[in-house]
This record gives sequence, C-alpha cells and structure tokens, in this order.
Amino acid sequence: MRIGIDVGGTGIQVGLVNKELKIISEASIPTRTDIPFEEQVQQIASCVLSVISSAGLDPEEIESVGVGIPGIASASGEIIKCTNMGWHHVPFSEVFHRFYNKPVFVDNDANVAALAESVAGVSAGTSSSVFITIGTGIGSGIIINGRIWKGCHGIGGELGHVIFDLDGVPCSCGNHGCLERYCSATAIIRMAREAAKLHPDSMLMKLAGNNPSEVTAKTVFDAARQEDPVAVEVYHRFIGYLAQAVASVVNLIDPEVIVLGGGVSKAGSFLLKPLVREFPRYVLFDDQPLPEIKLAVLGSEAGIIGAAMLT
Amino acid sequence: MRIGIDVGGTGIQVGLVNKELKIISEASIPTRTDIPFEEQVQQIASCVLSVISSAGLDPEEIESVGVGIPGIASASGEIIKCTNMGWHHVPFSEVFHRFYNKPVFVDNDANVAALAESVAGVSAGTSSSVFITIGTGIGSGIIINGRIWKGCHGIGGELGHVIFDLDGVPCSCGNHGCLERYCSATAIIRMAREAAKLHPDSMLMKLAGNNPSEVTAKTVFDAARQEDPVAVEVYHRFIGYLAQAVASVVNLIDPEVIVLGGGVSKAGSFLLKPLVREFPRYVLFDDQPLPEIKLAVLGSEAGIIGAAMLT
Repeated sequence: MRIGIDVGGTGIQVGLVNKELKIISEASIPTRTDIPFEEQVQQIASCVLSVISSAGLDPEEIESVGVGIPGIASASGEIIKCTNMGWHHVPFSEVFHRFYNKPVFVDNDANVAALAESVAGVSAGTSSSVFITIGTGIGSGIIINGRIWKGCHGIGGELGHVIFDLDGVPCSCGNHGCLERYCSATAIIRMAREAAKLHPDSMLMKLAGNNPSEVTAKTVFDAARQEDPVAVEVYHRFIGYLAQAVASVVNLIDPEVIVLGGGVSKAGSFLLKPLVREFPRYVLFDDQPLPEIKLAVLGSEAGIIGAAMLT
Repeated sequence: MRIGIDVGGTGIQVGLVNKELKIISEASIPTRTDIPFEEQVQQIASCVLSVISSAGLDPEEIESVGVGIPGIASASGEIIKCTNMGWHHVPFSEVFHRFYNKPVFVDNDANVAALAESVAGVSAGTSSSVFITIGTGIGSGIIINGRIWKGCHGIGGELGHVIFDLDGVPCSCGNHGCLERYCSATAIIRMAREAAKLHPDSMLMKLAGNNPSEVTAKTVFDAARQEDPVAVEVYHRFIGYLAQAVASVVNLIDPEVIVLGGGVSKAGSFLLKPLVREFPRYVLFDDQPLPEIKLAVLGSEAGIIGAAMLT
C-alpha cells in the first residue's frame, strides 16, 4: 500500500493505492497559499493519515508517500521550484517527516502522470514512453527503461519549451516560438479568436455567443465536427502543428508509445485519428515501425497513482 | 581487445582498441559502392584480420567487432538503412560472420561518437550526455545511464530533424524548418552567401575570392574574428540559433553534458564561449545548475573507439 498526493492549483488530492494500482481510499483539501509552508505540509500530512485510517489501516502498513507537484524537485525531496504554491527551495520531505515518517518522493506532475500511464494506464507494459499533456500549456514526462527521465539536473521533460518556431509567438517563459504556443489549448483559442473576428457569421462565432473572447478549444472542436469551415481550418492547423511536435519527439526520442493527455485529449478520436495519419510524414525514417500514439486513460487518477509509484 | 570500424562515404577505417581505449593498430580501405554487399563485407573482414595480425595478435584474442555507419541498424546487426553505401535491409552481422565469427554490433555513427566521448573523451565519467555533430548536417547521439539511447525502433537521436522553425527553410528530408537547416555548416554558408551578395565589398567576400559560392563556414569564422561586420552578423545569428537548439536539448533531455563535434566545432572557443553565455536565456529553469557544454576531443578517432565499445 502506498500513498499518492496530487498537488494542484486549487486542491490537493490524497489517495491510498493498493498493489493492483487502484485507488482504494481518497480525500482532498483545498490548496492554501496564504499559510506558511510548514502548515501546508502539516495539513497534507493530516489528510494522509485520515485517508489511511478511514481505510481501516495502520500508518505503519504504508510503504511510501509520493507527491506530484506543478514544479521541480530534487531526489532528496527538496522542492526546488513550485510557483503556483509559492514554494522555492523548501525541504518538503524533511518537514513531512515531522508528521509522518515514511519514505517520501517528490516529482513533477507531468512526470508522475507519465509514470502512472506507463504502469497502470494505456502505456502499461512498455519500457519507454513520452506523455504529453495538452492543456493551458504543454506538460510532458519521459519514461526510459521503465523509469522517469527528468534529466541530470531535474529540469528536463519540458517539451512545451522546446523552440518550435524561431522568433515566433511570445511565450510566458520570456522566449519566442516555444512549442506550447502552437500545440496547447491556449494556441487553439488564440488561432480561433483571430479567425472568429474575421468571420463574424461563422458557426464558431455563434457557438461562442458571438463573443470571440468566449471561444474555447471545445467550441472549436464542436464547430469543426459540424464542418464549420472557419473552425475546420483552425482544427487542421492545430493538428498539423501537433503532428510536427509528435514527429519531433519521434525523431529525437523514439519511444515505444506517445500518450496524449490533458483537456484537449478529451476530443478523443477526432484528435487522434488525423494526428496518427499525419505525423509520419514529418518523421525522418518514416518507412520504419513507428511509435504508437494513444490517448491517456487514467484521467485525474493519474496524479495519485503515479505519485504512489514514485521510488 | 576490440575492433572498431568507422564506415564513411569515402573510406572505411578499421582499428584495434585496447583496454585503455587507445587505438593500437589501424588500417583503412576505400568505400566501394560499385561491388555487391557481400564483397564489401568480405573486404572489411579482410582489413579487420590484417589489422589484428599486424598487431601480432591472434583473431581469437578479440572480444567483439563494432561498426559505426551513417545510417540505422537493428540490435541483431541488420543494417536497416545506410543510403551512402546503398545498403537497405542487409544482414551485416550474418555476412560478416562468414569471414570472422565474433560478436558484431552495428550502430549509427553519431551514436557511436557519442558513446566514444562518454567513455574515452570529454564526457568520460558522465552517465548522461548528448553529442551534437555540426557539419554538413546535424547528427546527434543520446547517452542515458551510460548507454546509447537510440529509441525503441532505432530511429531516435535525430536532433537535426526536430522542427525548429514552422514552415521554415526546406530540408533535404522533405520537410520545412528542420533544426539542421539553421545550425549546420550548410546553414552558415547559406546565410553568409546571402549576406555576401548584398555586401560585395565585405571582407567575407574578399576571403572568398569575391565569389559568394566560395564562402565556407571557415571563411565566416575567419572574417568574424577579424570583425568584418557582415561576417559578425552571420556569426551572431548562427550562435543564436545554436543556443536555442542547445537550450531545447536542455529543456527536453537535460543531460549532464552536451558535447559539440563535427567540422564547425573546430572554431573552438570562438564558438563555445558565446554559446555558453547565450544558451541559458532559452532554458526554462535557467536559475538551476545547467548542463556543461564542451567541445569533442576525440575527433576522427571517435568513430573507431566508439564502435569498439558497442555492446
């Protein structure tokens, strides 16, 4: 039995995961950035202990505690940077041990989700995979030889900030042309709003209540499914960008499977089918067997399950 | 004692490598694409046996034979694709065994050079590194946990064909905007020729005998060292592109060391110094310890030494 903790911007999910990699008990607390770090950790530890006791277990029966954070951490459990939580160089494991003394492992949330899918999800049984989460930004996690590869200094796996378009769209990171400016929900919305303004009579515009700032990624997919030409054009551009991003991952890393998660992946086969058709033309050795592209299956459970599997 | 073979477009180098990873005996034969595959392999095997005997050794004393090719190969020693040699799906190991029956390993030449530097060169002692060879194109090899990572299907490690500039400069591979179109000697030459045409009185143009088509990467570096403004502008653009390429490798893979080899790396500190200064600004977590950037040290010996180390 292991504990997995998924630290998010609004809530912290705690789950007890059994040997079959199922969540058997779960609870959550709101994310609090208005209290000191030690207090945040204490609240998390209390939640952990209550999840254990509500499953009728003794805290001693737990093997380890894993934590996924929207940031980076060291192997020793120091959180190096977690901007959402206001944590910079804070000794998470050390403080957590004051309340509950079990081995603690901390890693980036996309790495954790990558691990979860590779042991209990769609890429289970593979030894290498790249998980790409397509939401507001692009997160990614690399699994090589069955283990998370987060780099020598813990700063790898950031596919979203690979240069994808020299001198291109400005990114929140301060650079220009980062991959996530073209392959995220934010990118779909940017392209769609520009198109909607030019085509006030489009279905896309109608679905957004005639307000371009109400356009979402879902509006675009919905209108494209109904063959609205304005939405279809944005959809095709987005698929083309994502195909080039996926092919770049193949050309450089060539994992067994590439897993797509995050909000945009909910478009399902409407996203996957054209992508699988299109990405090989951007692969250098496209006459060879290629990685499979699959949709994530664990959804929000990936954060808890993957964290519980950290070692 | 192991044999390393470096298959190139004009010649095939064979070397005997000792336990200290030094080449103690060496010979070469011309590359022949006008004869059948079996004959090519027979000539290579003869050269191997003569290198062994000229070192006063018995063929039985050799542990293994490794081969680096400008192409891709399977784990079983089948060469899948090696366009320069006209080899497509040829059973190299099987044919080689007819002439000399020792374990044979075949891998891509950039992977082999990456391995060589990581065991006997500038990245010796590290467990992760990315080797980038900057020549006519961009080759690369990834070392993770001390071993070559060439991908699940053997088609990874092709940094040169990662998308770097959406809808950018056409590439020989058929796509647009591949990284090697901006970071290779060919890219320097393209940019410099365009600049030279616009500035017929530049030193760059003079060093090229007033013939833009005589401009080489070396001409550009030579003129830039002498502060020719036209060459300096091309040099800065190139360094900027390479910095973004290096930072992309850091953001995604974050190895312990990034090693630069190939013809352009001969520019030495004139290339390395500004690059080391510039790449961190494109790294997402640029306030963390970052990979070291180093120049390759093994030169043309990397092909033989790395091949000999294949397992």
